[in-house]
Amino acid sequence: MNENVLGITAAILTSAAMLPQLIKILKNKNVDDLSWITLLILIVGVSLWVWYGIIKDELPIILSNAFSALINVTLLIFYIIFRNK
Amino acid sequence: MNENVLGITAAILTSAAMLPQLIKILKNKNVDDLSWITLLILIVGVSLWVWYGIIKDELPIILSNAFSALINVTLLIFYIIFRNK
Repeated sequence: MNENVLGITAAILTSAAMLPQLIKILKNKNVDDLSWITLLILIVGVSLWVWYGIIKDELPIILSNAFSALINVTLLIFYIIFRNK
Repeated sequence: MNENVLGITAAILTSAAMLPQLIKILKNKNVDDLSWITLLILIVGVSLWVWYGIIKDELPIILSNAFSALINVTLLIFYIIFRNK
C-alpha cells in the first residue's frame, strides 16, 4: 500500500474511532462504565498532537487530531451530564 | 517546547489513555456502556499506524501504536468476557 494512503487511512480510523462510543452514550444516556480519566488524557494528548502538527506544518496531523479533540470533549461533556443519572 | 519532547509526550499520552479504561473494566467487570465498534476501529487503526511506522522506519510510531494495539485488544477480550454478565 502507498504510504500516504496508509497514513491517511490510519488517521481517519483512529480519529473517527470514538464516534460509535459517542453515539452509544447519546442513545443509552448511561456512562457508568466509561473512564473520564481516559477521556481527559485523550483530550490533552490529541491537543498536544495538534500543537505538534502546527509546529511541523503537517495539516493531516492537525485536522485528524483536532477532530479527535472535538469528539472527546463532546464525550466528556455528556459524561458530566449523564454521570449522576 | 522542543518538537521532539512535544511529539513524545503526545505519543505517550494517547497510547496510555486507554489504560484507566481497562483498569475500570477489570474492577467493575461491567462493559454495558462501552462500544465494541470503537475498540475494533481503534485496533485496525493503530495496527495500520504500526505498519506505517515500519514503512517509514519511525520507531516511536511503531512502539506507541503497538502498545495501543495491545491495550485495545485486551479491552476487546474483556469486553467479550464481561459482555453477558
